[in-house]
Amino acid sequence: MRTGYLVPQWHVERWLNAESPLTLEDLRGRVVLLIAFQMLCPGCVITGLPQARKVKAVFSEQDLAVVGLHTVFEHHEAQGQVAVLQAFLHENRLDFPIGIDAHARPGALPDTMLEYGLEGTPTTMLIDRRGRLRLLKFGHVDDLQLGAAIATLIAEDRNASAQGDLDMDHGSRQGQ
Amino acid sequence: MRTGYLVPQWHVERWLNAESPLTLEDLRGRVVLLIAFQMLCPGCVITGLPQARKVKAVFSEQDLAVVGLHTVFEHHEAQGQVAVLQAFLHENRLDFPIGIDAHARPGALPDTMLEYGLEGTPTTMLIDRRGRLRLLKFGHVDDLQLGAAIATLIAEDRNASAQGDLDMDHGSRQGQ
Amino acid sequence: MRTGYLVPQWHVERWLNAESPLTLEDLRGRVVLLIAFQMLCPGCVITGLPQARKVKAVFSEQDLAVVGLHTVFEHHEAQGQVAVLQAFLHENRLDFPIGIDAHARPGALPDTMLEYGLEGTPTTMLIDRRGRLRLLKFGHVDDLQLGAAIATLIAEDRNASAQGDLDMDHGSRQGQ
Amino acid sequence: MRTGYLVPQWHVERWLNAESPLTLEDLRGRVVLLIAFQMLCPGCVITGLPQARKVKAVFSEQDLAVVGLHTVFEHHEAQGQVAVLQAFLHENRLDFPIGIDAHARPGALPDTMLEYGLEGTPTTMLIDRRGRLRLLKFGHVDDLQLGAAIATLIAEDRNASAQGDLDMDHGSRQGQ
Repeated sequence: MRTGYLVPQWHVERWLNAESPLTLEDLRGRVVLLIAFQMLCPGCVITGLPQARKVKAVFSEQDLAVVGLHTVFEHHEAQGQVAVLQAFLHENRLDFPIGIDAHARPGALPDTMLEYGLEGTPTTMLIDRRGRLRLLKFGHVDDLQLGAAIATLIAEDRNASAQGDLDMDHGSRQGQ
Repeated sequence: MRTGYLVPQWHVERWLNAESPLTLEDLRGRVVLLIAFQMLCPGCVITGLPQARKVKAVFSEQDLAVVGLHTVFEHHEAQGQVAVLQAFLHENRLDFPIGIDAHARPGALPDTMLEYGLEGTPTTMLIDRRGRLRLLKFGHVDDLQLGAAIATLIAEDRNASAQGDLDMDHGSRQGQ
Repeated sequence: MRTGYLVPQWHVERWLNAESPLTLEDLRGRVVLLIAFQMLCPGCVITGLPQARKVKAVFSEQDLAVVGLHTVFEHHEAQGQVAVLQAFLHENRLDFPIGIDAHARPGALPDTMLEYGLEGTPTTMLIDRRGRLRLLKFGHVDDLQLGAAIATLIAEDRNASAQGDLDMDHGSRQGQ
Repeated sequence: MRTGYLVPQWHVERWLNAESPLTLEDLRGRVVLLIAFQMLCPGCVITGLPQARKVKAVFSEQDLAVVGLHTVFEHHEAQGQVAVLQAFLHENRLDFPIGIDAHARPGALPDTMLEYGLEGTPTTMLIDRRGRLRLLKFGHVDDLQLGAAIATLIAEDRNASAQGDLDMDHGSRQGQ
């Protein structure tokens, strides 16, 4: 999946923390932070998910939606259980909508993960108000750069054309 | 459970990462770091268990044994599944013996947790070469103080009498 | 000094890392991060100044200027020496312009510190493209919120009117 | 300077935070943590000196002495001023004895730094109750390992023979 292009609809078999299924179209007009995670992935528990919670607390809900995508590609039997995931969300105080990635092809990666070409978890994606992918990063994302990227997208006029990749690499090479 | 006294035998219904059931008597002569945890407890994943792994790497196995105790007192249905725990251990690269706390009284706390009087997870315990409890701390334990406490116990002569509480409180009030 | 209002000109008796004296007017059209510090203040060395360096690395120089203000209000004899400050800048790899706050009234606070009403060091200020104060925070500023605040100001049209306080408090209450 | 050998007397031209000059002989019978630092060295302010303060708070004064050595090998004119160092100690709340390394040969390294063969700052040294060097590390020292090393030395009988290098490298390769 390349930055600057429309993000194809995700394939979710079940939603938690949501009253009804959520589509990308429902979120059009807002910036979306989409975090792909697995509940047994330590990097998700230690950095990715706490950062997503913090993002939700810092920005206004009118401007930004935080959505989780549970993409189980390891330990299916263990991580594929909804009751365990629900307990996990409770313990980690994650109250934003969580979609469970569909899995049409046994033995293959989950459907959305495959279509989006995700490398692993955690992966953080930013989608602009018009539905275009603007940032996709596997692993740790620096707080300063993430805050800047989100605010940049929030500030974009809804009618303005997307400007491609936010080019976080510049900063991540030099930052820290 | 008070420091300075012999630790009663734990009640474990099943061991992982161990070829046969492990008893406190088996470990007599070595210092034991016992960490009580739950796999869905964020504080365990973020601080308690990585610290236990680091302790295992820093000290010699002849001097110190690291043992985990999975004490499920919340979300039994979710955390009580051995397959999920096994995946968790794999993902968090925990290769020391893990005992699953027995649970004879449904609705009550797990047996060892109850007998030891543990407040929650993570809880770190240090047991000396003679089997006596020397430190019991719920929550975060400072690295500097933990390293000092373990080395102090390792240095004690096997025949010397235990000297009671290591009095970590002194330091934790002033440290920072 | 209240957010939303024009920042009065600073009073600098000498500039380091600058070929000629720098005025707020020189920077009009760019966002300015102004960090007030003292070289012997541990919080400045540990958090404030490294954050300013990181901000400089992450954002484009065309959009953002980072400026330091050395406001000596303690240990004048020690911190007031330019040779020591120069060595300090070298050791901390600070290469952005640093103004030394003027000190017209012996025994009083330095002039800019007094006029701006700064409480201590480090203090971080954000000034928008039109020269108005938009954020003033004494102590630690969260990276996520700072990145968002700077990007928000960068995105503002140069002709648009300032919108007052960025209201970081909302986030800092809830973040963490 | 090799571990296991007696540490030669330091060469100090002036002591701060001490009523009278301090010698290694004065400290015989206690373990000594000696931290070599420069006040304008960021790594000293950020990690080395706060760690030394924490060590002082955690261990008993009867068992351990913490001593600082200000070894100015860069920016002599700036860092060589006692008034600046005094302000620095005050701001960083360092209340243990600080020796200013003597400097008999202009253009060369300070005397103690040269004799001890120190590579830079911060450098942490541990000296046992009998005056022998047991650990010498340039740069960051892990808290868990430092706590263990100090407690190990404290536990050694005053009459027992030194056992050489504490071999922190074993742990540092595997820890983290």
